[in-house]
Amino acid sequence: MAQLDIAEVFNAAKVLNDVARHPKLIGVTKINPEAEVYLKPENLQRTGSFKLRGAYYKISQLSEEEKAKGVIACSAGNHAQGVALGASHAGIKSLICLPAGAPLSKIEATKALGAEVCLVPGVYDDAYRKAIELQKEHGYTFVHPFDDPLVIAGQGTIGLEIIEEMPDVEAVIVPVGGGGLISGVAFTIKTIKPDVKVYGVQAEGAPSMVKSLAEGDRVNLDAVSTIADGIAVKQPGVNTYEMCSKYVDEIVTVSDDEIAAAILALLEQQKLVSEGAGAVSVAAAMFDKVPIKGKKVVCLVSGGNIDVTSLNRVITRGLVKSGRDCTIVLNLSDKPGQLSKVCNVIGDLGANILSVEHQRNHANTQIVGCRLSVELETRNPEHVEIIKNGLREAGFEVVE
Amino acid sequence: MAQLDIAEVFNAAKVLNDVARHPKLIGVTKINPEAEVYLKPENLQRTGSFKLRGAYYKISQLSEEEKAKGVIACSAGNHAQGVALGASHAGIKSLICLPAGAPLSKIEATKALGAEVCLVPGVYDDAYRKAIELQKEHGYTFVHPFDDPLVIAGQGTIGLEIIEEMPDVEAVIVPVGGGGLISGVAFTIKTIKPDVKVYGVQAEGAPSMVKSLAEGDRVNLDAVSTIADGIAVKQPGVNTYEMCSKYVDEIVTVSDDEIAAAILALLEQQKLVSEGAGAVSVAAAMFDKVPIKGKKVVCLVSGGNIDVTSLNRVITRGLVKSGRDCTIVLNLSDKPGQLSKVCNVIGDLGANILSVEHQRNHANTQIVGCRLSVELETRNPEHVEIIKNGLREAGFEVVE
Repeated sequence: MAQLDIAEVFNAAKVLNDVARHPKLIGVTKINPEAEVYLKPENLQRTGSFKLRGAYYKISQLSEEEKAKGVIACSAGNHAQGVALGASHAGIKSLICLPAGAPLSKIEATKALGAEVCLVPGVYDDAYRKAIELQKEHGYTFVHPFDDPLVIAGQGTIGLEIIEEMPDVEAVIVPVGGGGLISGVAFTIKTIKPDVKVYGVQAEGAPSMVKSLAEGDRVNLDAVSTIADGIAVKQPGVNTYEMCSKYVDEIVTVSDDEIAAAILALLEQQKLVSEGAGAVSVAAAMFDKVPIKGKKVVCLVSGGNIDVTSLNRVITRGLVKSGRDCTIVLNLSDKPGQLSKVCNVIGDLGANILSVEHQRNHANTQIVGCRLSVELETRNPEHVEIIKNGLREAGFEVVE
Repeated sequence: MAQLDIAEVFNAAKVLNDVARHPKLIGVTKINPEAEVYLKPENLQRTGSFKLRGAYYKISQLSEEEKAKGVIACSAGNHAQGVALGASHAGIKSLICLPAGAPLSKIEATKALGAEVCLVPGVYDDAYRKAIELQKEHGYTFVHPFDDPLVIAGQGTIGLEIIEEMPDVEAVIVPVGGGGLISGVAFTIKTIKPDVKVYGVQAEGAPSMVKSLAEGDRVNLDAVSTIADGIAVKQPGVNTYEMCSKYVDEIVTVSDDEIAAAILALLEQQKLVSEGAGAVSVAAAMFDKVPIKGKKVVCLVSGGNIDVTSLNRVITRGLVKSGRDCTIVLNLSDKPGQLSKVCNVIGDLGANILSVEHQRNHANTQIVGCRLSVELETRNPEHVEIIKNGLREAGFEVVE
């Protein structure tokens, strides 16, 4: 691509000054006790994600003629809302193609920001094809979600803000999907402060940039699968691949369970809602995926647009994983007083009972027995073991 | 009480400068479209609540002799964590009495901040009596959660910050439990800018200050019941009652459903976790409980310490209340193809099916029939009605 100039990023910062929020870095102590960790909370950004920056800046730089025709984009998520808000601010038309199965909440949010929505039967690729078709037909400008130098310059403003607020930062950890965010941030930081490390993080189930860098060429994954849907991208961009090769120190991956644990930690410890894609940077710091020991580190939390049903599921998964919610299954002989005995043992060992399921007729129990499932609030995995042992010592058969 | 001096609040601000976070006000557009609403996000405060301010300042002002003996408090919540952190920073011992049934997460958080925890069988009142007993026995200083001039001065620093960041603010809305927070904020604001309105908000199920002001004397409620457990206080303090009479313009109440809707709005629109007590100010603005039309208003979100299990319940309740999650129950004749016909009608009308329960043997169905419960993701209450009508038109019996 045309070489990106740092002046472009400074210009983007000027353009974005009135519309983008600039929430302060948040110091956190529990994410990784061996490093000094701060969060850059772009989930608190307008539209709930950093995507606004690039889309808004791109739209601001269109010619009058282009503006008169309007813009089009294809996205089921944060980019759609960024484009919609950017276009509304500029007073121009925006059309967003979405796969028809997109969550209602995202469709509604995009409409509420002033975009026209075109629901396309099928998946993302179908919606993308439709968008290209409409673009050609009507002469709209296509706003790419990541592989556009102006979009990248807009995301780069985050790098400027980090350096300005914390001049002695030593490392920055950034989520990576298509690579637009990290390209902008890494370019900006390495241009101004080349000694600061820039690490990227992808989901284990969508490692397109990691594999591309390893193979020395852009790979196109057959399939992607992760709870971090915002970074589930099959192939890096041409520009973003080149910039990642040049400016990023290392890109690592995290698992869905690690992402869920990071979402839960941000929710409980920091009172912040993050989406899967937004929390991968925190997951990388929590689970020691990058060399940050003893360093002053900023984790970029890129967005918070998780639908609440998914959030409920992530919370449950995170609680189970950290041993704070467990279900113990017992075989009981079917005689009076058994349930109260079980409850006594559990109560004495300091756990709270959340629910009880008492089931006769289970295929695996003796004829005169029944099966009991007890869901408990516990402290940690050790606590779960203590309770299971306590029940065994009291004469109960613990199935799982 | 000894008249509070505004110099005390300025001194508290100086003492708190290094330890308290000062997150910026957050402008929000959807909470009340007829007012210009901002949030003061004390849920992002260290320990997840404003309580740190008062407790920390109180502890900082103890004599060396008092510090040597240590402090004691009684709380199952935010105050406990505030005292624990304040004492740890001061390098002194803290002992927190908690009712034995307190949530494990709160007990753990209090211990993690360096406090000793004393679990007392019974309810809050029992823990309180135990704390007083221990205080007398060991000479600890008792840190009251609200009715102490130094604690009130600490909370007042929030008023200073609001005025400093937004000199043209016209109204401030503040949660009210025992009254410590609003006493500090109202005293500070009315002393410096008497024209700014200060409104308080209590939960409908715990209106102790509202009733006290109406009766002209401190009432002691027999019982309190609300999801906003942080402000479920039976009786105002002597000092806080006096200060509310003098400095607060009006105190209103909100229902639990309104609080749940506010928690959900903050979660989805602002990516912020708030507890019930923290969200009552937002609920008051959302549901037009205070006269803020056309005004520049700050809602103080006082805390975010809601346990995740409660959060799950609140999310579900909020979704149902806003028509975005509904369960439709049908009587079906028990012949092939019925379920798929129902699914088609629902799909055509734009709702997503979340779960299906298909039940024979229900007492209220005909012998050859069965009952079907379908949980749906919908757009709003009107959408729910459209779907029910569509099912009726297709010949199905909609039970509820």
